[in-house]
Amino acid sequence: MSIKLSALAEELGLEYTGADIEISGVNTLDKAGPDEISFLVNPKYQQQLETTKAGCVLTSGPYAERVRSALVSTNVYMDLAKIINLFAKPQGCLTGVSELAFIHPDASVDGTATVYPFAFIGEGAEIGSNTVLFPGVYVGEGTRVGANCILYPNVVVMGGLSLGDNVILQPGAVLGGDGFGFAQTPAGHMKIPQIGTVAVEDDVEIGANSAIDRAALDTTRIKRGTKIDNLVQIGHNVEIGEHCLIVGLVGIGGSTVVGNGVILAGQAGVADNTRIGDGVIVGGQCGVSGKLEPGVKVSGTPAMPYATFLKAAGVCVPKLPDMFKRLKKLEMELESMKKAVGEDNE
Amino acid sequence: MSIKLSALAEELGLEYTGADIEISGVNTLDKAGPDEISFLVNPKYQQQLETTKAGCVLTSGPYAERVRSALVSTNVYMDLAKIINLFAKPQGCLTGVSELAFIHPDASVDGTATVYPFAFIGEGAEIGSNTVLFPGVYVGEGTRVGANCILYPNVVVMGGLSLGDNVILQPGAVLGGDGFGFAQTPAGHMKIPQIGTVAVEDDVEIGANSAIDRAALDTTRIKRGTKIDNLVQIGHNVEIGEHCLIVGLVGIGGSTVVGNGVILAGQAGVADNTRIGDGVIVGGQCGVSGKLEPGVKVSGTPAMPYATFLKAAGVCVPKLPDMFKRLKKLEMELESMKKAVGEDNE
Amino acid sequence: MSIKLSALAEELGLEYTGADIEISGVNTLDKAGPDEISFLVNPKYQQQLETTKAGCVLTSGPYAERVRSALVSTNVYMDLAKIINLFAKPQGCLTGVSELAFIHPDASVDGTATVYPFAFIGEGAEIGSNTVLFPGVYVGEGTRVGANCILYPNVVVMGGLSLGDNVILQPGAVLGGDGFGFAQTPAGHMKIPQIGTVAVEDDVEIGANSAIDRAALDTTRIKRGTKIDNLVQIGHNVEIGEHCLIVGLVGIGGSTVVGNGVILAGQAGVADNTRIGDGVIVGGQCGVSGKLEPGVKVSGTPAMPYATFLKAAGVCVPKLPDMFKRLKKLEMELESMKKAVGEDNE
Repeated sequence: MSIKLSALAEELGLEYTGADIEISGVNTLDKAGPDEISFLVNPKYQQQLETTKAGCVLTSGPYAERVRSALVSTNVYMDLAKIINLFAKPQGCLTGVSELAFIHPDASVDGTATVYPFAFIGEGAEIGSNTVLFPGVYVGEGTRVGANCILYPNVVVMGGLSLGDNVILQPGAVLGGDGFGFAQTPAGHMKIPQIGTVAVEDDVEIGANSAIDRAALDTTRIKRGTKIDNLVQIGHNVEIGEHCLIVGLVGIGGSTVVGNGVILAGQAGVADNTRIGDGVIVGGQCGVSGKLEPGVKVSGTPAMPYATFLKAAGVCVPKLPDMFKRLKKLEMELESMKKAVGEDNE
Repeated sequence: MSIKLSALAEELGLEYTGADIEISGVNTLDKAGPDEISFLVNPKYQQQLETTKAGCVLTSGPYAERVRSALVSTNVYMDLAKIINLFAKPQGCLTGVSELAFIHPDASVDGTATVYPFAFIGEGAEIGSNTVLFPGVYVGEGTRVGANCILYPNVVVMGGLSLGDNVILQPGAVLGGDGFGFAQTPAGHMKIPQIGTVAVEDDVEIGANSAIDRAALDTTRIKRGTKIDNLVQIGHNVEIGEHCLIVGLVGIGGSTVVGNGVILAGQAGVADNTRIGDGVIVGGQCGVSGKLEPGVKVSGTPAMPYATFLKAAGVCVPKLPDMFKRLKKLEMELESMKKAVGEDNE
Repeated sequence: MSIKLSALAEELGLEYTGADIEISGVNTLDKAGPDEISFLVNPKYQQQLETTKAGCVLTSGPYAERVRSALVSTNVYMDLAKIINLFAKPQGCLTGVSELAFIHPDASVDGTATVYPFAFIGEGAEIGSNTVLFPGVYVGEGTRVGANCILYPNVVVMGGLSLGDNVILQPGAVLGGDGFGFAQTPAGHMKIPQIGTVAVEDDVEIGANSAIDRAALDTTRIKRGTKIDNLVQIGHNVEIGEHCLIVGLVGIGGSTVVGNGVILAGQAGVADNTRIGDGVIVGGQCGVSGKLEPGVKVSGTPAMPYATFLKAAGVCVPKLPDMFKRLKKLEMELESMKKAVGEDNE
């Protein structure tokens, strides 16, 4: 597939400069060829504008003047996403419903859905229009998967769950495994059966091998537009707000409530029963518990304001050995001065 | 299914108060209806006793007096577990052995077991009575799975392993992958083949996408009653005691020995060759190495006593920038005083 | 299988002492019997030389004198790896290509490869000689898997990827899931399609349930000889050098470049766009960002030199509460001394 720069500009509602070349792909500044479009956002890479062989560069006004041909944007990443979408070929090589899949006679699969070999669809499950189930996907009994969803290979969605539209589950993601709930008894830990559910709203994406536990009695909920990275653990009865970003290896304990537009950076940990307000930013490896007011930015374990963390953990902690020496020296000096003054006063 | 409150009380050996209503389910205080039983443990939620529509509340004595109808318990979570068990419907929609599974002719599957489509059972493997293998489960050659086990979708149990009775493996759990062992050679890392095994004893549960490595030569062992959460990594030759709780994203390095009744909170990390005594509690994100005496409670990286951690990391570290200023001020004051006293003494 | 000690010595090019016994296996010092060979590296376990029943011990010179029969090595782990290889039986119980696998008519599978039931090979994919695909493995369209590779059960290798020779992927590993890339728009996070690839070079091993994301436009690359443990997350466009060791639950953010021979210990986290020089050692749970010069050894969050970390976090932080008291005491003493000296001077 290829497209004229003028047509691309029109499609995106953008201005372009330079020759109306034919564009057949997208690439990085250092790899793009004369029939490809590249992009620049980060000023750090602006020197590459001099050397790139890209036929055209998607960038903001000031940079646009420095290249032969530019597509001028005020939101480069958004327009980049749209352009890549034009050239992207979706993963997969089959359409239709494979005879090698298992579909329960009482399941309902939309005629436009794709079901690969070795997918399993349980009793009473519903698969919406244009949704794709790759090989090894398990959809449990009574689970509803909306329209335009993609469940990549070996995704597991246990029974009784609900997925909205445009949901993307990366390979190996597990939804609706049992929450980690046990009663302490003299004979050991007794399992509390987890009979709640998981609800994933529209436009949510969940990363490879992440795990979202079903609620004990109620609902674990991931609200619309939230994006979850790989290897993230979300405990039972958690509620994640809209449009959050949850980065790889984050763990969220049971019954925690996360507001809208929250960012949890990689390997952050959130304890059980925590309340995180809207727009909070939690730093990588940060340990959060209790309550965070809306809009705060925290880091460290236990969590503290980010500015404090930078100074306390980043600057002061490495200087502690020196500081202990200074303190010891002060104590000795004070001691000898006390003696001196004491003698002086005798 | 529904049950009279009186019958429920008798079944559990508990007293009840109020009308002998018909109970058809379990729910949270804020969601339960008049035909459902709810529960209260945490005093934090006691106000909900005023507003709940639950027909009956399972709780301890003092709270029982505050509701129309109560089931009075001294171990609410344990009795809750028993009640939910009455109402819980197990996951899954098939019984028997599917013709779409692969069962090696030399494998042995008990007549009461359930094997879903696309499960694979290797040569010489044994599957015990009432055990359920969901789709995509792999049981390797010579592996023995006990009775009443549940292996959820896409669980992998490699060859030569042994699982006791009542073992639950959540979706995507991997048992018996190779331990991470390499010899350093001039040509790079040479793989040390991992020819040991994994033994999982009775009543163990392992969470979604967790990984338990096979031993190099000997046995990685998870003792009876231990419960492991999602995305936990357990290295080769590790031995975990009885009735431990290991929370999500914990990592345990090779050859570590963990005692009985140990709790490792979320994202804790335990180095290779560590010894953790019985009853130890390790805090979230804590980093442990060396040896921990029985019964201690630790947190921080490196681990320190929990009480110290609360003061040192929780209170002092955030004040370090201020503390550095105070130290600097003291030094200057002492310096000028030394001068003053010196002059004074001249 | 069994082998004469003299033949084993010859095969490995080593000297042996004692009787030329027949050896039928490898085991630990405390478990080995008279027909087995054991090994000793760590001096900590040297007492076991007195009590072991092992027929022969693989060890270095000084220890060799203390046992009846020894195989004398200057690289015990390397020779141990070679010996175990002689006795190791590879996992699995089938050979050939199963009729229960799905192989796209336009895929190419070498005649010596093994493909288990329920494996899926997409259009245009190529599987090299002697490579084994276990059940539930997915190889996407156009992906090339080299020779002598092992893809354990439920491994996912998405479309358009490239794997070298002798690559081992432990169960549940996911290669080529989408990178975590979104454009911020007024309507929320817009997915940036990830149309790049993953290249895994020769002799790489990747652990159970680890996830290696495909690049946005270019290539996520794992260079030859690198070994990755379980539950590791590697973001899009990352480049990992040769012969690295990356331990369990490590997370590496997008576009980071890791040099050759780097060791990342368990649960370490590396931020986006980080540069890590050759031979760097990063401690467990360490948080790295920015740039690390070749050969440095760091720990802590944020990362600091390892020696500093030991003193600052290991020794000083737990003493902070005491230190705060000492500082307060100093301030008070200085204050009263100022008064005393002041009065004195009056």
